[in-house]
Amino acid sequence: MKSDIEIALAAEKKPITEVASKVGLSPDDLELYGKYKAKISADVWKRVADRPNGKLILVTAINPTPAGEGKSTTTVGLGDALARLNKKVMIALREPSLGPCFGIKGGAAGGGYAQIVPMEDINLHFTGDFHAITTAHNLLAAMIDNHLHQGNELGIDPRQVLFRRVVDLNDRALRKIVIGLGGKAQGVPRESGFDITVASEIMAILCLANDINDLKKRLGNILVAYTYDGKPVYARDLKAEGSMTVLLKDAIKPNLVQTLEHTPAFVHGGPFANIAHGCNSIQATKLALKLADYVVTEAGFGADLGAEKFLNLKCRFGGLQPDAVVIVATVRALKYNGGVARADLNQENLEALRKGFANLEKHIENVGKFGLPAVVAINRFPTDTEAELALVRQLCEEAGAEVALSEVWAKGGEGGIELAEKVLKTLETRPADFRFLYDLEMPVKQKIETIAREIYGADGVIFTKEAEKALEGFEKLGLGNYPVCMAKTQYSLSDDPTKLGRPSGFTITVREIRASVGAGFLVAITGDIMTMPGLPKRPAAEFIDIDENGVITGLF
Amino acid sequence: MKSDIEIALAAEKKPITEVASKVGLSPDDLELYGKYKAKISADVWKRVADRPNGKLILVTAINPTPAGEGKSTTTVGLGDALARLNKKVMIALREPSLGPCFGIKGGAAGGGYAQIVPMEDINLHFTGDFHAITTAHNLLAAMIDNHLHQGNELGIDPRQVLFRRVVDLNDRALRKIVIGLGGKAQGVPRESGFDITVASEIMAILCLANDINDLKKRLGNILVAYTYDGKPVYARDLKAEGSMTVLLKDAIKPNLVQTLEHTPAFVHGGPFANIAHGCNSIQATKLALKLADYVVTEAGFGADLGAEKFLNLKCRFGGLQPDAVVIVATVRALKYNGGVARADLNQENLEALRKGFANLEKHIENVGKFGLPAVVAINRFPTDTEAELALVRQLCEEAGAEVALSEVWAKGGEGGIELAEKVLKTLETRPADFRFLYDLEMPVKQKIETIAREIYGADGVIFTKEAEKALEGFEKLGLGNYPVCMAKTQYSLSDDPTKLGRPSGFTITVREIRASVGAGFLVAITGDIMTMPGLPKRPAAEFIDIDENGVITGLF
Repeated sequence: MKSDIEIALAAEKKPITEVASKVGLSPDDLELYGKYKAKISADVWKRVADRPNGKLILVTAINPTPAGEGKSTTTVGLGDALARLNKKVMIALREPSLGPCFGIKGGAAGGGYAQIVPMEDINLHFTGDFHAITTAHNLLAAMIDNHLHQGNELGIDPRQVLFRRVVDLNDRALRKIVIGLGGKAQGVPRESGFDITVASEIMAILCLANDINDLKKRLGNILVAYTYDGKPVYARDLKAEGSMTVLLKDAIKPNLVQTLEHTPAFVHGGPFANIAHGCNSIQATKLALKLADYVVTEAGFGADLGAEKFLNLKCRFGGLQPDAVVIVATVRALKYNGGVARADLNQENLEALRKGFANLEKHIENVGKFGLPAVVAINRFPTDTEAELALVRQLCEEAGAEVALSEVWAKGGEGGIELAEKVLKTLETRPADFRFLYDLEMPVKQKIETIAREIYGADGVIFTKEAEKALEGFEKLGLGNYPVCMAKTQYSLSDDPTKLGRPSGFTITVREIRASVGAGFLVAITGDIMTMPGLPKRPAAEFIDIDENGVITGLF
Repeated sequence: MKSDIEIALAAEKKPITEVASKVGLSPDDLELYGKYKAKISADVWKRVADRPNGKLILVTAINPTPAGEGKSTTTVGLGDALARLNKKVMIALREPSLGPCFGIKGGAAGGGYAQIVPMEDINLHFTGDFHAITTAHNLLAAMIDNHLHQGNELGIDPRQVLFRRVVDLNDRALRKIVIGLGGKAQGVPRESGFDITVASEIMAILCLANDINDLKKRLGNILVAYTYDGKPVYARDLKAEGSMTVLLKDAIKPNLVQTLEHTPAFVHGGPFANIAHGCNSIQATKLALKLADYVVTEAGFGADLGAEKFLNLKCRFGGLQPDAVVIVATVRALKYNGGVARADLNQENLEALRKGFANLEKHIENVGKFGLPAVVAINRFPTDTEAELALVRQLCEEAGAEVALSEVWAKGGEGGIELAEKVLKTLETRPADFRFLYDLEMPVKQKIETIAREIYGADGVIFTKEAEKALEGFEKLGLGNYPVCMAKTQYSLSDDPTKLGRPSGFTITVREIRASVGAGFLVAITGDIMTMPGLPKRPAAEFIDIDENGVITGLF
C-alpha cells in the first residue's frame, strides 16, 4: 500500500493556470508560486462580486476518536466526485500547520487518493501565509515590549500583557517563559510565553476579514494589555496595525491548488478550532462561491465545535448561507463511541455500533437546529462488515438523514459518487432555511447556555468566579454583543473528554473568558486548552529526509 | 525628491521571464513567485557547470560611518552601468532582514535610482527564505528541548546548550530569557534566548553550502550542546538534519529579481557580517559567474571585515577567484574619519579629508595583500565640493588605485559609467593574482594574528583566558584547521569603535571563541557583539501603512 506522500509525489499535476481556467480564472488573475500554486489577485473579487453564489456544502464530523474519521479526505473526495458528475465545483480547505507535521499528527491535505497537491509544499511553507502571520504577530509583541522599555507612555502593566508570541512549531519549552532578563538594556522582565501560530488571534482575524480594510481595522482592535489603572490597550494604541497589514498583504489572498484529480481547491487560513473558530478564510469561501456552482468546505473537530462555530461565527461575519451539511463518521469511530476499546475495533459489534450511533444522531439533530439538511458520509474501512454498514444506513435513515458510503481514500472521486449524488439530491429536495442559533443581542451568558443546552445537550452552564469577573469587564468594554467562540474538548459533546456517545445529565463549566476583540468574539474556555503542543518522544522530524534529487521521504 | 519606495513603486518592471532571458534562462528554468520574482531550478546548475566563469567584482567600502557610504547602491549602479556598456552582467546581493525594516535602518535594496525591485517584496517576506531558515533553526531548538524533556538519552547538560532560537525581528526582550517553566509537563527550565535570524548559523550554512548534500552535512555538524561529561552534541545526534534540509529545499535556490534598469540580479542569503561572513550565497555567486560575463557582488560592513571574510571564507569554501575589488567611499565619510563632527560634514574641509583618507588608503593596501587590484568609487553627495573631489582623486591615484566618481543614486546606471569603465580597464590591465591571507594549516592563534596585523594594522592580539580555554577545547575536537570568522566592530580598523581613520599602536583582544562547526569556521569575538537588535523609541513600524488598493507607504 502506498503512503500519502508516495501517491502525492507520483501524481501528474496540471499547471495551475489550467486548473484555474476550469473556474474561469485567467493567468492574469493568478500570482504564481511555482507551477502548481497560485494566489488569486485582489482584482478578481471586484469582477465577480455581483455574481450569484453557488451552493455551499459544509463537511463536518462526529466527535473525533483515535480511530480517525477522514473529514479532509471526504471533503476532497466529495469535490472530486461532484467534478466527475460534471459539476463546476471548488473545494475550500484550511492550510496545515508546520508544527504537527514534525510531531505526530502529520499534515492535513487529505489522504490516499483524495488529496490536494503539491502535498509536500502545502504541508511545509506553502505560500508563506503562516510565516507572515507569525511575523505580524511577533512584530506586535516586540512593539509592546519596546513600549515598556522606552518609557511606557501608555502605562502598560507588565503583569497584564495578554498578547504572547507565536512560532509555527511544537515547542513545549516555550509555553511558559520569563523574558526581558539581563539588566536595564535588555527590556523589562515579565512572564510570557509562545503559542503555536494557528492559535494566534491574527490567524483568526485573517480568516474572518472581508477585505484589507476590514483586516487592518480588526488588527488595530486586538486587545493586548491593560494599564496599571485597568484600562485596555489595543494594538492601534501602539500604531502597529499598518505594519501588520503590510506584512499580511499577500497572506490575505486565497491560495489555489488542485486535487489529485485536478479539481480546483482554495487552501487558505487555518485557525485553531479551540480558541478560534477553525475554518478556512471567509475570503476564500466567498470567492469560491462566485467562481463555482458547488463549494465543498470543512470545519475543525466535530460538529459540536467546528460546525457550530462555522455557522454562528464564520457565516455571520461573512454573510454566508450554507445549503447542506455532510457529517462524516466511520463504523470504527461509532463503535469506539459505543464503548469498544481501540484494540477491539476490528471485530464486528452491532450492539456497540447502535450505542455509539447516539453521537451521530445528536449531530444530525443539531444540524437541523440551524435549518440545514444533513447527509451522513460513512467513510468505509476494510474492516467494516456488511452487517455494520447496513445497520448504520438504517439508523441514519431513521434519524431523517440521507446516508452514503464513501470510499474516496481508496478510489478517489469514483469512491464518492454515491455521496455526491445524495448531496445533490438533498440540495434539490430539501432547501435550507438557515438561521443562527442565537442573536447577538442576547446576553453573553445566555448565548453560552444556548449553545450548551441545544448543541451539547447539557443541563446548564456553571461560570467560575474568574469567568464572571472577566465577563463583567468585557461587558463594560462594550463587548456584550459579541458572539461566543467555545473552547471545549473535541472528544465529547460534554466538557469531559471521557464521556463518549451522547452524554446526558451534565453541566458545562466555563473556567475563563477571553476577548479576541480583533477577531470579534469572546472565547469561553471549558477545561484545559492547549495552545502550544509538544513533540513526542520520537518526533516525525527524526524520520523526514530529502535526497540529492530533492525527493522527500517520511512526510505524511 | 522622491523616496526610495516611491521610485521603486513607480518603476516599470519587466516580467522576470524577460529579464532571465538576458542571461540565457528560459521560463522552464524558473520557479515563479508572482510576475517579478523567481527561484532558479536546481537543474540549471547541471547544464551550465562546465562553462567558464565570468569576471567576479567585489564591492566593499571604507569603515562605515553614520554619514553613509552607499555600498549596495553602488553595486546595483555599477551593474546597470556595465549593462549600459553592453556587457552581459549579473548582480549578486544579500537578502535584507525584516527586523531592521521595522526598526531604524530601513531595507537593503539599494537606493534612489540604483535599486532592485520589487523593493517592497524584497524587504518583506520575499520568497520566504528567511522564514524557512527561522523554522529550520527553531525546529532544531525544539528538538533539543524535547530531548531534554523526554529522558535526555544523550545526557545533554541543560546549562551547556549553545544553540539558541531565532526570530527575524528586532526584539530585545528575547535576548535573555528563561524557558521550560511551569512544572514537569512543560519541559526543563534553563536559560536561553533569541537571536535575529540573520545571526543564525543556518543562515551562514545556507550561504556557504555548495549543494543540497553539502547543506545537509553542514546542518548535521552544528554543535548544539555539551553533555554533562563535556562531550560535544551535534545536530546529527538528534537526527534533525533531514527535516531541516527539507525545510530549506527551496531556500537554497537563488532568487532572481531585476534592477530599475532591468539588469538581472540574484538576491540570496544574508548572514550577519559579525558572527558570520556577511556575503550572499556561494550558490548564487557561482551560478551568476556561469550565466554572465561580469558579476558584481558585495560584502558586509567595511573591507576589514566584509572583504576579508569574503576572500578568506566565501572564496575558499566556494572555490571562487575574484578579479577586482571596488572600495566605496564618500567625501563626507572620509571627513568623518578625519575627525569632523556629523553636524559639520556639509562644510568643505580638505585637511580633515586628507586625514580621513588614511582609512581608505589602508583598505586599498589591504586589497593588494590578496593579490587583487582596487578601484575606488567616490559616491558623490550634493554637498561635496569640487576641491574635495579633486583631492580624493589625487590621493587615490597616489595610493595606486583607479578612482571614479559615482552618481548612481541620482542618475542610475548612467551615473556609474565612469566607474564601470575604470573597472573594465582594471580588469584588462591589472590581472588578479588572488591568494588567501593565511593557510588553514596555520595554528588558529596565528591565523587571527595574521588578520589583525595585516588587515587591521594591529601590533598584536591578546587572548582572554576564556578564549584560550575555548580554543584548546575546539582544537581537541579537531577544529584547529578551520578558518576564522572575525567578529569585530565595523566602525574602526581596531576593536575600539571610537578609533577612526587609520589607528596604530593598538592590540586586538579576543574575548571569546565560538565554533560554527556546521558553517565551518571558528568565530573570534572582540568586544561586544549584538546578535539581537532592539527597536528605537519611534520604530519605523509605527509609520508603515498600506491603503485599500495595496499601496504601501513608509517603507524605506
